[in-house]
Amino acid sequence: MKTMSNRIVMVGFGNIGQAILPLLSTHFPEYHVHIFEANIGKSQRDLCRRYNARLTEQRITKDNHGVVLQPLLSSRDYLLNLATSVSTCDLIRLAQLSGAFYLDTCIDPWEYAQAGAGIATSNYALREEVRELRRHSGGCPTAVVAHGANPGFVSILLKKGLIDMASAHGIAHDPCLCAEDWATLARTLDVRVIQISERDTQVGTLARRPGEFVNTWSVDGLVTECLQPAELGWGTHEVKLPPNAHRHQFGSQAAIYLDQPSHTVKVKSWSPNFLDFDAYLITHNEAISIADYLTLREAGVPVYRPTAYYAYHPCDEAIDSMKLLADNTTAAIASTRILKDEIVSGIDELGVFILSGTYPSLWIGSNLSIGKARKLAAQNNATSLQVVAGATAAMAWMRVHPNEGILESDDLDYQFIFDYAEPYWSPIVSQYTSWRPTPASQGLQFEDFLIR
Amino acid sequence: MKTMSNRIVMVGFGNIGQAILPLLSTHFPEYHVHIFEANIGKSQRDLCRRYNARLTEQRITKDNHGVVLQPLLSSRDYLLNLATSVSTCDLIRLAQLSGAFYLDTCIDPWEYAQAGAGIATSNYALREEVRELRRHSGGCPTAVVAHGANPGFVSILLKKGLIDMASAHGIAHDPCLCAEDWATLARTLDVRVIQISERDTQVGTLARRPGEFVNTWSVDGLVTECLQPAELGWGTHEVKLPPNAHRHQFGSQAAIYLDQPSHTVKVKSWSPNFLDFDAYLITHNEAISIADYLTLREAGVPVYRPTAYYAYHPCDEAIDSMKLLADNTTAAIASTRILKDEIVSGIDELGVFILSGTYPSLWIGSNLSIGKARKLAAQNNATSLQVVAGATAAMAWMRVHPNEGILESDDLDYQFIFDYAEPYWSPIVSQYTSWRPTPASQGLQFEDFLIR
Repeated sequence: MKTMSNRIVMVGFGNIGQAILPLLSTHFPEYHVHIFEANIGKSQRDLCRRYNARLTEQRITKDNHGVVLQPLLSSRDYLLNLATSVSTCDLIRLAQLSGAFYLDTCIDPWEYAQAGAGIATSNYALREEVRELRRHSGGCPTAVVAHGANPGFVSILLKKGLIDMASAHGIAHDPCLCAEDWATLARTLDVRVIQISERDTQVGTLARRPGEFVNTWSVDGLVTECLQPAELGWGTHEVKLPPNAHRHQFGSQAAIYLDQPSHTVKVKSWSPNFLDFDAYLITHNEAISIADYLTLREAGVPVYRPTAYYAYHPCDEAIDSMKLLADNTTAAIASTRILKDEIVSGIDELGVFILSGTYPSLWIGSNLSIGKARKLAAQNNATSLQVVAGATAAMAWMRVHPNEGILESDDLDYQFIFDYAEPYWSPIVSQYTSWRPTPASQGLQFEDFLIR
Repeated sequence: MKTMSNRIVMVGFGNIGQAILPLLSTHFPEYHVHIFEANIGKSQRDLCRRYNARLTEQRITKDNHGVVLQPLLSSRDYLLNLATSVSTCDLIRLAQLSGAFYLDTCIDPWEYAQAGAGIATSNYALREEVRELRRHSGGCPTAVVAHGANPGFVSILLKKGLIDMASAHGIAHDPCLCAEDWATLARTLDVRVIQISERDTQVGTLARRPGEFVNTWSVDGLVTECLQPAELGWGTHEVKLPPNAHRHQFGSQAAIYLDQPSHTVKVKSWSPNFLDFDAYLITHNEAISIADYLTLREAGVPVYRPTAYYAYHPCDEAIDSMKLLADNTTAAIASTRILKDEIVSGIDELGVFILSGTYPSLWIGSNLSIGKARKLAAQNNATSLQVVAGATAAMAWMRVHPNEGILESDDLDYQFIFDYAEPYWSPIVSQYTSWRPTPASQGLQFEDFLIR
């Protein structure tokens, strides 16, 4: 029975679903939260009791999502898709039918293709499906896809970074109102490479057991990404494709993919509080959306686009765990564990590294520690708090922009989102550097970053 | 036999002595380093070999310091006192006799009074002894006392913070050229409390053994401080003395002391990346020197002075270790260990927390991680690197200001020292906050901070 109260319907109650609950209770106290989760444990029940949320043990599927969820959704309610393998496109359709807002932190299909089975469910293909839906969504209730930390808040940091760089280097520019303005600014700044650069140093007390996959966020999520082909936004300054690289035959053409699972591709990265580190080029939506957003075209032909990708060094125990994927299957994973209460120290350094061919490069991002994350919100570590802060900020923005159709993080008002999420992301570190992946790499070619 | 080559003579080769060696080799490559240490281990010998330093196994004492050290010192050489219980005053006299520069990171006597034996070797008394010597040091070779991280570089950060606050709050002020200018600015900003605020979250892999005292820097140093009476610079805004507090009958009168060892006095503090924490009010030179430096007098009577003290939360294993001091002696300490190679994560968040009665308060300081510290300099963790970066910057400053006599950190050119040490201290975090120790503590009285 549909009631008139405000409702947040949440699909999936894993790491991020649990982490967002305290923020919803702070920022959306007037909403009833109703959660659907396939496998419920005691701690999840306790949590729902504490936050006065309703919890239903049911897997949301292709067949049942309409009949189960639609009766719960009214105009200006929220549908949050925080599950793995629950279709972004189908849930957006459902939300918009009811006049409800929609948000997820990652574009998902109902089912991922098996590793090695091509790119049918690559981030590129999934994004194109959303873009197709978007063409018919103008004026519909606002739906924000792929908006957590990254993908998500990093697109906000990127804009802040571009404005800061222009100001630091004394470069005048027009107000940035649309994608073309931002792309023009990026070109003026000679931005060639944008790394989403993350070095997670959180450590726990418990030793990893044989066969155990340990991470600071969803193990399913990370493993899925690790086994997908590596993907990256492909800049116009690049001279030659990397080994095993392919262009797409459809869609935006902003990105390429490699015939290699993400967990086998390593690149050089850098952060202000770790300096050089070796990162994995993990496929992520923002690599594609940022590259696409910052593309300038003349007569339809791209004349400027930066290379963009996610350069990720998970926490040390996750790195260790990734050896379990050596055969590119999940067969060696005997059990999983998410580091939360047992973390004893560390920060999740996550930011946008904007590399210019002409000017000093800028790393701007968060230095959030586990000690601070715990105090800001229960049920969180530094990693999850960055995700749910980004998501909550976008939810707040939707209320004041209710009929914008389907949007990506790059389309949002960066100042609003930044101001809303900043207390959870701070300390924000903004550091200029002359760092280069190799002494000779003045051109910032992708091959200079690639570790063979 | 005295040679004409440039020489750095180092007394003491413990944690800080070992940590400064890589920085000396970078910033003072043209100097020969000659080290005196009472107890030499194999790793210390290896280190000296690697850095081409000369190492002599000899304890420097009241009786032998002149005859051993003076033949090695010429004009513009450096005498670094990095030992515990080697007299600052006697080594300054020795250096100045030879025309050599002097630096230490802490004012030391030849021997500390036993715990409970009064305040003969309190930081206040030791500083007064240096001040007495200073009166006759004008034009002598430059000697900088108590200049590492804190005491030391924090006095530089304080000045940067005061300028930033004035700019952020739109307060015009005269150029700050002398102590009175800085004190006037602090008064204009209504600065009432200056906490040197430190939250060390570095953690190691090895479990602490029973009776083992573990720390991220000299265990002797920390234990000595813990057992000395708590001391703090005492502000003019304070209404009543804390329990067990005493004023001094001699000297600057800028500070008071408590009839309690430092490790038994706890205060509330805050940092940008940990938020609230309980800290120990550990006696430190900067608490006194800062309060003294920022004192304004009218007709000889203090009309403005901030309260200043060190609010320190050592790493968790050191906190655990401090229980061994429960009887206010070192009897329960069976062994000691300095965390260095076994650190797996963490940052040493160390800054100056400038609390104003009128304006938003500012925390400005370092967020340095172990991962970064290791890459910047061998033989270091985040804690030691902050110390030796401050010390090295002052050494560089002396070369261009060779005849300034005895100076404290507060007397140095803050811009020079900041620029020199900043690469080692960054990321520098600068955060405004409305934090208060208690909701009601608008007056920022010391009793609002004290944890009973």
